Amino acid sequence: MAKIVECVPNFSEGRDKDKIERIISVLKNNKQIKLINYEADADYNRTVVTLIGEPEPMIDAIIELTEVCLKEIDLNKHSGEHARMGAIDVIPFIPIHDVKMSECVSYAEKTGQLISEKFNIPCFLYAEAARHEDRVSLPNIRKGEFEGMEEKIKDPHWKPDFGPAKRHPSFGSIGIGARDFLIAYNIDIDTRDEKKTNNFAKAIRNSSGGFSYVQAGPVYLENRGHTQVTMNILNYKKNPIYRVFETVKMEAKRYHYNVPSAEIVGLIPKDAIMRSLKYYYAVNDIEFNEDMSFDDIVRDAANYLQLRDFHKSKIIDYFL
Amino acid sequence: MAKIVECVPNFSEGRDKDKIERIISVLKNNKQIKLINYEADADYNRTVVTLIGEPEPMIDAIIELTEVCLKEIDLNKHSGEHARMGAIDVIPFIPIHDVKMSECVSYAEKTGQLISEKFNIPCFLYAEAARHEDRVSLPNIRKGEFEGMEEKIKDPHWKPDFGPAKRHPSFGSIGIGARDFLIAYNIDIDTRDEKKTNNFAKAIRNSSGGFSYVQAGPVYLENRGHTQVTMNILNYKKNPIYRVFETVKMEAKRYHYNVPSAEIVGLIPKDAIMRSLKYYYAVNDIEFNEDMSFDDIVRDAANYLQLRDFHKSKIIDYFL
Repeated sequence: MAKIVECVPNFSEGRDKDKIERIISVLKNNKQIKLINYEADADYNRTVVTLIGEPEPMIDAIIELTEVCLKEIDLNKHSGEHARMGAIDVIPFIPIHDVKMSECVSYAEKTGQLISEKFNIPCFLYAEAARHEDRVSLPNIRKGEFEGMEEKIKDPHWKPDFGPAKRHPSFGSIGIGARDFLIAYNIDIDTRDEKKTNNFAKAIRNSSGGFSYVQAGPVYLENRGHTQVTMNILNYKKNPIYRVFETVKMEAKRYHYNVPSAEIVGLIPKDAIMRSLKYYYAVNDIEFNEDMSFDDIVRDAANYLQLRDFHKSKIIDYFL
Repeated sequence: MAKIVECVPNFSEGRDKDKIERIISVLKNNKQIKLINYEADADYNRTVVTLIGEPEPMIDAIIELTEVCLKEIDLNKHSGEHARMGAIDVIPFIPIHDVKMSECVSYAEKTGQLISEKFNIPCFLYAEAARHEDRVSLPNIRKGEFEGMEEKIKDPHWKPDFGPAKRHPSFGSIGIGARDFLIAYNIDIDTRDEKKTNNFAKAIRNSSGGFSYVQAGPVYLENRGHTQVTMNILNYKKNPIYRVFETVKMEAKRYHYNVPSAEIVGLIPKDAIMRSLKYYYAVNDIEFNEDMSFDDIVRDAANYLQLRDFHKSKIIDYFL
């Protein structure tokens, strides 16, 4: 099978549905790569796109996406909750199948070179692609955001890795990187008390002494009327979803809060779902069947992991 | 109130009961410090002693202990499961009340100086007291053990911090250090399958992606006929006992193993017990009473944390 990468570009429009559709249509119409999903957030004013495909067509698709975002988005007129420095703010390449991290670094580099040459947009390499210690962290690069970057980029210390040492007047600049796959996982808590939900986040997240590969925080979802523990799981083998889920339920018990459901944002490897389902099969004395259908996996994920809005299309069936 | 330190010397005799009693009697007869307990392990051939007291009397007691161990123990005739380099192998000072870590470092230094002067025994400073990066870890110093130290200590790189660069012919050498309080906590698993129990240890320990302040491993207790997850909890505020206990129970469910009990080895701060009991009171809708008696605490710790062999004398009532 061919080399497969995931790419998760984030662009800085999450409110204007027509504009979002015009941007996304470029990806929908591209038959060389697969648009897995896109999630627009009005509060953040930002859209997260999940793409899967072979490396070269993926780079081409990102160039097309850059072109349409350059036409549609003017950061001078943009405001939102999420920090941003560009019309496309960040482009991470993620190894999925038969691809090394070092190859993803080279795709990031090639993408940065092409974007800077074609559109005169400055690009910074981050995460595994970073060439400087203080560019590993994207927030560190992005500090000051679009507005502050006008001056920051003139500092020789913040010379971009590709393109001019000059902020693009409407687009800004982009962070392009390579990183490992992560699972974006949120657990719904039946309370509006964000402080209590923060206690649950602290119980499980690495930065507060919890599990090593979990990043977590509380969020209040105004439309849904409850809070969530919102997470990234950076290594589902060492910190499996069921363990995180059961630990949060255990903590929620002390306040007698219900934990009615959870959700996967974007993609999840089949292996990650299976590892967690196996736990519940064993607990419930259900024999594991190696040849389960995807429909059965989705049904059991809804049943045991209480995943809502879960679909077959969210499962990547590659061994990572 | 006076300054209080804990000291946990480990000496290399865990089998000969008469010899152990002769050594311990020196501490029992010392009215200036308090012998909390001592736990002799025949497989390890090692005894762990827990002492509490004011710093100067504690240093005096350690000197007396060294004198009797020098008389009673000859490491040339010693074998056991636990790595060791000296008749007293390790002496850590731990701040308990109104004592800074830097003060404990100075007690370690003073103890090393006195032992080396009085008995001509080489001493290495480790942990917070270490003067070299590669002496922070005691196992690093101890590598090669009593036997290997004969040559190792002649290497200028391994010159001891106090005393001659020559292994004491019968006593060996000692690691003397300062470190934070830790809770030695073991969870009993009703199985002989050490491999499965190791899975539970891996789920919770920092080195395998678990909780940040938990060190854990599996052990098979031949006399008791079951395994344990044996642990150090380095920070009970960030990794409370109840969370570790409940997580291990959750993992054990997949094999339908009982988790009948757990134990605290040595001391536990009252605050650590209370934080965990409060979780169970909340879960069970029991009102928390600030003025609980120690008898009630011991009863509830046995009930909810399933602690066996737990006594009032194990609880330190200082805020750490």
